[in-house]
Amino acid sequence: MKEYKDWLKPIEESIAVLYKDRDAYGLMDPMEYIISIGGKRIRPALVLMTYELFKEDPETVIEKAIVVEAFHNFTLMHDDIMDAAPLRRGKTTVHHKWDTPTAILSGDAMLVHCYQMLANEKNEIIADFSKTAMEVCQGQMMDMNFETRNDVSKEEYLEMIRLKTAVLIGYSMELGALLAGANKEQTKLCYDCGVNMGLSFQIMDDLLDAFGDQALVGKQKGGDILADKKTYLSLLTIEKASEKYQETSKETKESVKVEKMLALYEEKGVRKETEELMKDYYHKAVDGLNSIGLAKEKTGPLMNLFGFLFQRAF
Amino acid sequence: MKEYKDWLKPIEESIAVLYKDRDAYGLMDPMEYIISIGGKRIRPALVLMTYELFKEDPETVIEKAIVVEAFHNFTLMHDDIMDAAPLRRGKTTVHHKWDTPTAILSGDAMLVHCYQMLANEKNEIIADFSKTAMEVCQGQMMDMNFETRNDVSKEEYLEMIRLKTAVLIGYSMELGALLAGANKEQTKLCYDCGVNMGLSFQIMDDLLDAFGDQALVGKQKGGDILADKKTYLSLLTIEKASEKYQETSKETKESVKVEKMLALYEEKGVRKETEELMKDYYHKAVDGLNSIGLAKEKTGPLMNLFGFLFQRAF
Repeated sequence: MKEYKDWLKPIEESIAVLYKDRDAYGLMDPMEYIISIGGKRIRPALVLMTYELFKEDPETVIEKAIVVEAFHNFTLMHDDIMDAAPLRRGKTTVHHKWDTPTAILSGDAMLVHCYQMLANEKNEIIADFSKTAMEVCQGQMMDMNFETRNDVSKEEYLEMIRLKTAVLIGYSMELGALLAGANKEQTKLCYDCGVNMGLSFQIMDDLLDAFGDQALVGKQKGGDILADKKTYLSLLTIEKASEKYQETSKETKESVKVEKMLALYEEKGVRKETEELMKDYYHKAVDGLNSIGLAKEKTGPLMNLFGFLFQRAF
Repeated sequence: MKEYKDWLKPIEESIAVLYKDRDAYGLMDPMEYIISIGGKRIRPALVLMTYELFKEDPETVIEKAIVVEAFHNFTLMHDDIMDAAPLRRGKTTVHHKWDTPTAILSGDAMLVHCYQMLANEKNEIIADFSKTAMEVCQGQMMDMNFETRNDVSKEEYLEMIRLKTAVLIGYSMELGALLAGANKEQTKLCYDCGVNMGLSFQIMDDLLDAFGDQALVGKQKGGDILADKKTYLSLLTIEKASEKYQETSKETKESVKVEKMLALYEEKGVRKETEELMKDYYHKAVDGLNSIGLAKEKTGPLMNLFGFLFQRAF
């Protein structure tokens, strides 16, 4: 059984040749650029590690597994235009390095190319890819709508992160199961495991933005607070102490705003409750994986990966 | 055998319900908007009319046939952003009516939705749809690249319009054949017929822009000339009389520029040669359709449609 770190090299090697040998009038250069500037490759690793739960030759499906990484990078290319972001992973975004038309068009072609990667698979794999892709678009739409809304509930927030982030993690595990010929029940358990892991991971991200060690997290502490971003933390605080939240968010001095908001999160039990929710989803994911009924040595590498992803959190 | 005009009502009825009954956080409103503001519905009509060459129940595949109209409208939505166009068919474009992020995202979802429309079809239908979609992206990329290039050949221009316009006409006829269970050779003949028709049609469009009756064409006569757009006419003129073309294109008075350029097109035989090329492709399309070896009453409606499309030209 291969561990997450064992997959990184073969995944990188497959990604390195994904957009080669194609004359597409420059359409593939931005695809190659965005997918090569980094990323933890969690999604294709999940495909391969889930595949290995059921079948012993995961190296035969590496070229298919990277479809989820390609799709993820397609969403990044278009999201960066929508967010007018100049940087992605410390590098110039595609629409800045080239221009917006090229980023739109290259993204479109990148999405089509994902379908080409799945061209010989059975209908279920393609149909569920489409379902996931549509949900990711819905999640991005919800997220954009949130910016101008004042009545977002924490249930809506959870639905948004489920769509925008978690379903693709779910599909990555589902794809591994389907490619390996797992049965319907096993496939469903894998999908749900991935969705729960994705939800937990996104909530951890929100927590780290607020409470994480700045050096470890690699971005400004309290960035979400300063941007008045809707997160589970802020929405729960609004629910529990609306007036105090409004008052705190009006604070103009940045460091004071962050410190006051963090204090409010602690005082109202918001931090604790959010950590509990993160752990709940984490345990649901782990329990789901266990309930497939495989030997511990089979599920070990996935459990290790989950542990690695959350080592910063608990 | 149904004629083109017989298909318009059923096609409109299917399009009218295509994006209904879906809660997608507003993602489908722009799709519904752009597809409802008009269009001749040539592409889905070609699917259905080609289907009827081989099988008697074309009305059973209307819901699938409109995938080519949906895809065409997806390309319009994104192309309008790339071209910074305020109007499409006299109506506000999606990125103006909503905003650019919404137009990008709704377009992405519209493309995914096309694949959902084909979810239960055999791999060949989906794979050839992807191939076509990729080629359309390549054509748009070529077209954008042309704007800043001074060395475009007429062969490259023909390749660009093949990719940007003709292959989707070809795929429309191919899809009709495949859905009806036509054999490989028949399917190939249908595809090639559509591609040739698409090439002919695009060249006619260029000719009409230059020489068409303004009232009939519905846009400013000589628009391409005034915009120094690369068309078969301009590229052939550059090939035959580069200096005279450059001199004429520097003319600052609009009406004089158009008149002088049209005179140059006539003088150098460019108009005639371009009309010949248009007719060549038209006859290739017709000959291809005839070579399938079907009864005249079978191919009649398609021949009538081709005649209708070209009635303004010859």
